Amino acid sequence: MHNSVLKNNTNQSGIEKKAVVLLSGGLDSATTAILAKSNGFEIHAISFAYGQRHSVELEAAKRVVDFLGIKHHIVVPIDLRIFGGSALTSNIEVPKDRTTDEMIAKEIPITYVPARNTIFLSFALAYAEILGSADIFIGVNALDYSGYPDCRLEFINAFEKMANLATKAGVEGLHIKIHTPLINLTKAEIITRGMEFKFDYGLTISCYDPSENGLACGHCDSCILRQKGFKEGGFSDPTKYYN
Amino acid sequence: MHNSVLKNNTNQSGIEKKAVVLLSGGLDSATTAILAKSNGFEIHAISFAYGQRHSVELEAAKRVVDFLGIKHHIVVPIDLRIFGGSALTSNIEVPKDRTTDEMIAKEIPITYVPARNTIFLSFALAYAEILGSADIFIGVNALDYSGYPDCRLEFINAFEKMANLATKAGVEGLHIKIHTPLINLTKAEIITRGMEFKFDYGLTISCYDPSENGLACGHCDSCILRQKGFKEGGFSDPTKYYN
Repeated sequence: MHNSVLKNNTNQSGIEKKAVVLLSGGLDSATTAILAKSNGFEIHAISFAYGQRHSVELEAAKRVVDFLGIKHHIVVPIDLRIFGGSALTSNIEVPKDRTTDEMIAKEIPITYVPARNTIFLSFALAYAEILGSADIFIGVNALDYSGYPDCRLEFINAFEKMANLATKAGVEGLHIKIHTPLINLTKAEIITRGMEFKFDYGLTISCYDPSENGLACGHCDSCILRQKGFKEGGFSDPTKYYN
Repeated sequence: MHNSVLKNNTNQSGIEKKAVVLLSGGLDSATTAILAKSNGFEIHAISFAYGQRHSVELEAAKRVVDFLGIKHHIVVPIDLRIFGGSALTSNIEVPKDRTTDEMIAKEIPITYVPARNTIFLSFALAYAEILGSADIFIGVNALDYSGYPDCRLEFINAFEKMANLATKAGVEGLHIKIHTPLINLTKAEIITRGMEFKFDYGLTISCYDPSENGLACGHCDSCILRQKGFKEGGFSDPTKYYN
């Protein structure tokens, strides 16, 4: 991919600044990686094997890494099943065929994984500190999202403040920034950004209840938001569904 | 152990409130568990197998759990060695025979593990949310400590604020509290608190560089702070040393 604004994020020696990018294998985090890369950061992607039902997303994350030419990718094994309590990590059924109004307006859904983004960002913070990076990217989105509390900007801002008190980097004056380039974009706008860089969204998977060979259900909250995004953006949906 | 103030932390049905207590197997976290228990909380202890050199502390954590009659204890496997960068998780040498002035006054030491308490508290937060608990206890201490940024009260306060924005519990009005009962105590005062409950500190281990059979080095920062605590408190030191 062409880095049109590379110079913005090089240091005085012309070396790219490192950024840690949370990469799930879904549409949002892939677009976040694209935007971080297009802003001239050297990407260090971090994914999590957290006992998710949809572990095929880790294969998708690897496809995204390959497609974008990302040289550094770690997959952190953490077993959130030890706590249970979410449809994404236990045997609770994933809700299907809800309208977007039902998703957004109502309570926090059963697919919410307690403190997941807090845990993920904490590992990203550790990784950034080891790398000497002050930039962490996460693809949270406040518009077309599933109603999780840890996807809101006020959470991210509070995490950033905490991060600067938590770390050696923060104490020593390197301001740690949590970048949320998708926060105010619709799903259609997110897809449009990636399309501008000729990204193949068929590599990603957003489904909460995919088949073992990586096909999407087409009916969970995440599939519905994704379908809506392609439709509203005027793009054909490259996702493969099993029903 | 006798719960002298049990009624303070029961709900209307007289059931003990649950608290998540971070338990390392060291002196501070054991005392924290004692204080949480003496305040009438039902303790859910959480420890981490994080690739630490001093993994004998997990055996110490189990001894503390048994001694205090704690019924719930989970050990979360997370491999912080994936990032490297600390003397506690890699092959960097643990500093020895520094004076307490050298520890406190100077820069953050090599035994600092990047974002460790952020990661540990994030898991504790997930556990608390699953349990329906709003109370997390951590044995951080601002006086006789090793100079880690994530042991300071301002970090804890920022984490608490973030936690209340991160979680379903926080959003729905259950105020999550990070308790730091040791924050303003000297090591001698911490030990004195435990002694009041006839706790056996010989069960705990604080050493950063213990032998495989759990003996302490007597020369790392943590051993030196611990020895100072027993001495200033007027107690004999029950710790077994290998040199």
